[in-house]
Amino acid sequence: MNGLNNSVVIGGQALPELAEMLGQAAVSQVFVVVDTNTARHCYPLLEPYLPKHKLVEIPVGEQYKTLATCELVWNELTESSADRFAVVVNLGGGVVTDLGGFCAATYKRGIRFVQVPTTLLAQVDASVGGKTGVDFLGFKNQIGVFQEPAAVFIDPQFLATLDARQLKSGYAEVVKHWLIADAQAFATQRQEGVLVQDWAPIIRSSVATKQQIVEADPLESGLRKMLNFGHTVGHALESYLLLQSGREILHGEAVAAGMVCETWLSAQRGLLSASEQESIETFLFSVFEKVQFVTLETDAIAQFALQDKKNSGSTINCTLLDGIGRAVYDQPVTVAEIAESLRYYHRL
Amino acid sequence: MNGLNNSVVIGGQALPELAEMLGQAAVSQVFVVVDTNTARHCYPLLEPYLPKHKLVEIPVGEQYKTLATCELVWNELTESSADRFAVVVNLGGGVVTDLGGFCAATYKRGIRFVQVPTTLLAQVDASVGGKTGVDFLGFKNQIGVFQEPAAVFIDPQFLATLDARQLKSGYAEVVKHWLIADAQAFATQRQEGVLVQDWAPIIRSSVATKQQIVEADPLESGLRKMLNFGHTVGHALESYLLLQSGREILHGEAVAAGMVCETWLSAQRGLLSASEQESIETFLFSVFEKVQFVTLETDAIAQFALQDKKNSGSTINCTLLDGIGRAVYDQPVTVAEIAESLRYYHRL
Repeated sequence: MNGLNNSVVIGGQALPELAEMLGQAAVSQVFVVVDTNTARHCYPLLEPYLPKHKLVEIPVGEQYKTLATCELVWNELTESSADRFAVVVNLGGGVVTDLGGFCAATYKRGIRFVQVPTTLLAQVDASVGGKTGVDFLGFKNQIGVFQEPAAVFIDPQFLATLDARQLKSGYAEVVKHWLIADAQAFATQRQEGVLVQDWAPIIRSSVATKQQIVEADPLESGLRKMLNFGHTVGHALESYLLLQSGREILHGEAVAAGMVCETWLSAQRGLLSASEQESIETFLFSVFEKVQFVTLETDAIAQFALQDKKNSGSTINCTLLDGIGRAVYDQPVTVAEIAESLRYYHRL
Repeated sequence: MNGLNNSVVIGGQALPELAEMLGQAAVSQVFVVVDTNTARHCYPLLEPYLPKHKLVEIPVGEQYKTLATCELVWNELTESSADRFAVVVNLGGGVVTDLGGFCAATYKRGIRFVQVPTTLLAQVDASVGGKTGVDFLGFKNQIGVFQEPAAVFIDPQFLATLDARQLKSGYAEVVKHWLIADAQAFATQRQEGVLVQDWAPIIRSSVATKQQIVEADPLESGLRKMLNFGHTVGHALESYLLLQSGREILHGEAVAAGMVCETWLSAQRGLLSASEQESIETFLFSVFEKVQFVTLETDAIAQFALQDKKNSGSTINCTLLDGIGRAVYDQPVTVAEIAESLRYYHRL
């Protein structure tokens, strides 16, 4: 539990503690936001721990992470005369926790919400940091607020509802947290790969890492950029392939490839030794399959790195590794260097 | 300036200081939100103080204080690639400042906004307290957040653009601030009525009063309920008449009547002396015309007080006066007492 904020409960005690919280007299009504998937696969596991509540089901998928879906939720809260003492429980992956969190944070200028993330990605990433929001005009999380949930309840049993690809996608963020801030966890926890017997300690150290970074920089003015490791090249790859029909990849798959590229960039600049680079690369390829593209596409992919909202003008500020477990942010890289790193990745 | 937060500038220096703020290097783009009225009457007064900017015009009126109008604003910000260093300037009454504030507070999880309130009501009330939001399904301010503006610039010259009825409506909140917290201002500032030569000192003390209350209770858990004086009966009257075709009254007109009723309730309970009651009543009727209704309607009007979102169950928690310049909140009153106070008002 070291370093963990009290309001994040991880492991078998998560759902009993959620039940205790919701049973308090200061809770007037409980609303549970689910998507079509979590309604079927996760809600039955949660239901025994819930007091009387209303279920609010939204359609599944990023394409429904919109204001129109928020209106469904706000409508349900309004029709049920939810007051300021109502609590919203968000049961699902990042779309449900981001959207449900935004709806609660803006209903009557903010009611309490708790996150019950059901994907590994949401458990180690989306549930921590207080980011809520929805997409708008095709831009991800364009409309939203920073608002911490009242609590986060993480039960690893939900991971059994995921397919292997989804699990791996979340695992990329776990690996990222090791690489930027936790050399010891990288040394000791990576042995099992994704065939993990007990996820709780892995999630716990991963969440602790993210919390420490977020708490030091809640509004993303500096330190938090460490979390972008793997994401400069990763986002570019993800965005490029999204536009190529039938070639979409998952976020974590793109980030895993991005981490290989940005590890290479770190080594090129002498920030990382050849043996450190090799150890990272070997491990990443032992878990993640290689993302497919051809050499001719590398320049086009690299161009997408320029469109990331965190950049201004033509320099791309990238987060690189300064050793395993240490990151340095705001490292300017050129589009040419990014293309070069993609060609390196392609040759491997 | 005593008691005033530094970020509220009142008087002739307001617009020059706004110009200085917007001229800073850390401001990437400026967006000015206006409605059809303020575009015509107020924007020409502001324009000389603005750097290069984009004008975002929304339709005028409470009926457009909706998410659909927010989408217009978010659309403009998105299409213009506004980044986190953009600033939104809201020029208008409460609809513009509440809606524009909400749009800015949620765009990319929050960019800075400044309020340039142009009505007396917005200058002494809506611009202070960090409330932003829009109406939803007919409920006022149902969707919104608490977010303080980067600064508030109040120039009394905008008041010359108001008709007398609008001016008086805002004046009711000025009087309310005197009655709940500033006996001295009530004694010295009320002589001119609304025929004021220099509004700056009146606005300044009124804003200071509201700021002190809001800062002591930013999330409305207690003290801030003092600001509801006149509003229990006032809201009931306003809501009732809104449903009677052709009988709508302005918010401040309803609050002025509500203050007469709630002053009577305070005297009935021995909280206020007969001479204090008379001095308040005489002054209110010297400024505000009597709101018209018939005795037969008083029970129906009183019923509306039960629907206020600040109540739970059948008791109505009302704010009463405990002397001129002193308020006590959470005073339970019955519907019958409210009806009785309305009959008193009607007989006057």
